[in-house]
Amino acid sequence: MEGGGGGSNKRWRFASPNPAVAAAGERSIQRYTLDLQGCLDERGPRPVIPLSIGDPSSCPSFRTRPEAVEAVATALRSGELHGYPSRDTNLAACRAVAEYLSCDLPYKLSPDDVILTSGCTHAIETVMSVFGQPGVNILLPRPGYPKHEAHAVFHHMEIRHYDLVPERGWEVDLEAVEALADENTVAIVIINPNNPCGSVYTYEHLSKIAATANKLGILVIVDEVYGHLVYGGTPFVPMGVFGETVPILTLGAISKRWAVPGWRFGWIVICDPKCILKETKVFHSLRTFRMLTADPATFVQVKLDISQLSNISDDVDFCRKLAKEESVMVLPGTALGMENWLRITFASEPPKLKQGLERVKSFCQRHQS
Amino acid sequence: MEGGGGGSNKRWRFASPNPAVAAAGERSIQRYTLDLQGCLDERGPRPVIPLSIGDPSSCPSFRTRPEAVEAVATALRSGELHGYPSRDTNLAACRAVAEYLSCDLPYKLSPDDVILTSGCTHAIETVMSVFGQPGVNILLPRPGYPKHEAHAVFHHMEIRHYDLVPERGWEVDLEAVEALADENTVAIVIINPNNPCGSVYTYEHLSKIAATANKLGILVIVDEVYGHLVYGGTPFVPMGVFGETVPILTLGAISKRWAVPGWRFGWIVICDPKCILKETKVFHSLRTFRMLTADPATFVQVKLDISQLSNISDDVDFCRKLAKEESVMVLPGTALGMENWLRITFASEPPKLKQGLERVKSFCQRHQS
Repeated sequence: MEGGGGGSNKRWRFASPNPAVAAAGERSIQRYTLDLQGCLDERGPRPVIPLSIGDPSSCPSFRTRPEAVEAVATALRSGELHGYPSRDTNLAACRAVAEYLSCDLPYKLSPDDVILTSGCTHAIETVMSVFGQPGVNILLPRPGYPKHEAHAVFHHMEIRHYDLVPERGWEVDLEAVEALADENTVAIVIINPNNPCGSVYTYEHLSKIAATANKLGILVIVDEVYGHLVYGGTPFVPMGVFGETVPILTLGAISKRWAVPGWRFGWIVICDPKCILKETKVFHSLRTFRMLTADPATFVQVKLDISQLSNISDDVDFCRKLAKEESVMVLPGTALGMENWLRITFASEPPKLKQGLERVKSFCQRHQS
Repeated sequence: MEGGGGGSNKRWRFASPNPAVAAAGERSIQRYTLDLQGCLDERGPRPVIPLSIGDPSSCPSFRTRPEAVEAVATALRSGELHGYPSRDTNLAACRAVAEYLSCDLPYKLSPDDVILTSGCTHAIETVMSVFGQPGVNILLPRPGYPKHEAHAVFHHMEIRHYDLVPERGWEVDLEAVEALADENTVAIVIINPNNPCGSVYTYEHLSKIAATANKLGILVIVDEVYGHLVYGGTPFVPMGVFGETVPILTLGAISKRWAVPGWRFGWIVICDPKCILKETKVFHSLRTFRMLTADPATFVQVKLDISQLSNISDDVDFCRKLAKEESVMVLPGTALGMENWLRITFASEPPKLKQGLERVKSFCQRHQS
C-alpha cells in the first residue's frame, strides 16, 4: 500500500481504503448532480430551477399533514421514545405496517413478517447485504435506481440488466429475464410504481413476473416506495398479491406517500404465505442485518432526439449546457442506465415546474439543427 | 446451494445468504440477552430487573431536557425539515458538531471535517466499511464493544485483540499493541470513556497511544460516544488533542450525553490538522459511504471469583442462574471477550438498581461454596 502525504516520506498503512466503496460510489446520481452544479452560472440573472432530484417535501403544496407532525411531536413529548426501540414499541410499529399492507393482499401479514428500516434505502442495503456475495448474480432493471446497483456492487454481486420496454409502457422484458438467469441468480428486482419511468404495472404483468420467477426458482424483491402514487385512475397492485406463486420481499417507506423522507422510516416485508423463505436461512439473516443511507422522486422520462439538436453530443452534454445556459437542472438518463434520455422530476411547485419546462423549450428551440 | 422447503422438492436459488452476515451476528450482545430472557421465570413473584443492557433514556431521572424536545418539535412544525438533508441544513449541522468538539481541541475543526451519521453505530459501520477488506487487520480492545467486532468481521478484516489491563485502570497494553501490529494493520480502535469498563484515560496515556500509532504508521479510531460522561472529577480528554501526532477519526453521537439514542444522530470527525488522511483516498471514501444500526450504555465491571461459588461453572452459567432464580439480568463478560467477568449497567432508576444489586448479593450468598 502506498503511504499518504503529510510532507514526510513516512509510510502510513491506511492509505488504501476498501475499493468496493469507490466501485459502489460510481453508481450514484450524486456524481451527475455535482457535475451539473459545477456547470451552473451562479451569477446568472435567473434563479436556478432544479428538476433533477425530486424531493417535494419542503414545498408547501406537497407538505405532509399537520396531524402527522403533531403525532410525532406528541410522541416526543411523552418522553417514552427517546431510547432504543423496545420490544413493545417495535412490535406496535411492525403491527401497524403489517395491517397497512394487508389491506391490499389476499392473506394477512403478521408483525413477524415485518423488518423495520431507516427508510427504503436502508431496506435496499439490508437486502443486498444479505444476498450479496461473490459468485451470485441479481437481475436489475435498466433504467433503474442507482442505489440498488451501488449496494449490489458493494457486496460483490454480479449485476445482470434486463430492459424495461418503453413501447410496452416500460414493462419488464420477461424473455430477456429468462435468458439472463442461471443457477447463480438469486433474485429479480422490480420497481413498481416505477422509478424513474413513472409507469405502473398491471395485475396481469405482475402475475407474469411472479410466474417467471417461480419457474426460475428466484426471489422477487419489489421496491414499492412509490406505492399508491399513480397517475389518474391507474390501480396500484402490490407484488405481494402473488406471494403464493413466489416468495416476495416488499421494500417500502413512508417517505413518498407521506412526503417525509427525512423521517427515515421504512420496511422490508416478507410476503411468503407458503413459508418457503422462512424455511431457509434468509429469514434469520435478514433479521441479523440492519443498515442505512438516502435519495429518490416522482418523475417523467423524456427521450432526446439528438439528431434534432445542433452542438449537443448526448444527454450528459444536453444537461450540462442546459444548466449553464438556462439554470435548469435535469438528470441525464445515463445516470440511470439510459443514454439519451432525460429524467425530469415533477416534484416541484407548479409555477416553478412550468417555468423550468419553458426554459427547456427555449433551449431546445435555440439548439435546433 | 441447497433449496428451501415449501413442501415441494423444487430447488430455490436464494436459500444460502451471505455467510458474513451470520459471522458478524455471532459478535452481538443480543445473542446473550436472548438466552438470558429464556432463563427468566416469567411467572415468578418478582418483577424482572434488567441490569444487562443500559438504555436509561426512558427513566425519568435520565430523561433529556424539555428544551431539547421542544427544539425538535419546533423544527418539525416548521415544515422545512421533512425532506432529505439539503446542502444548507447539512452544513449547519456539521458546523454545530465542529464547534462543539473544537472547544476541547488545540486547533479548530471545520464543517468539512464532519461526516454526519445515524448515531454512533452508523459511524462504526461506515468506518469499518471503508477500511474493511481481506488481507487487512485492525487492533481492537479486549474487553470491547461487539459492534466494532461485528462490522470488522462483516468486512472480512482480521481482528487482533490487545488487552486492557485491569490493574492499570484498564489502560491499553501498548507493548502488546506494538507486538500485534504489522504492515497490514490499518488502525487501532480506542474506546474512551471506556465501554464496558467505565475507565477514563489520562492525557499521558492518550499521548502514548498517539505516539505508538505514529510509530506504527496506523490510524487511531476513537469511539467517544460516552464523551464527558465521567465519574467524579476525572477530566475527559478527547483523543483529537493528539491529531498533530497521528490522524484520528473521532466517532460520537448525541445518544449518551443527551440520553436520546432513539434520535439517531452521530458523527465521524476527521481530526487531522496536518492533512495526512485528507491526502489519501480515505477522506473521499468516507464521504462516499454511509450506513446504520443501533445499541450501548454506562456500566461497571465485576470480576467473578468462581472458586467462591458452588455449582456455578462460569460467568455465563452465573448469569443464567441469576436470571432464573432472581429475575435479574446482567451480562456475562464473555459477551465482551472477558470470561468470568460481569457487566452491570448503572443506567437504571436508583431504587431499581439497589434492589437488583441486593438480589445479586443474596444469590452469591446462597451459592457460597
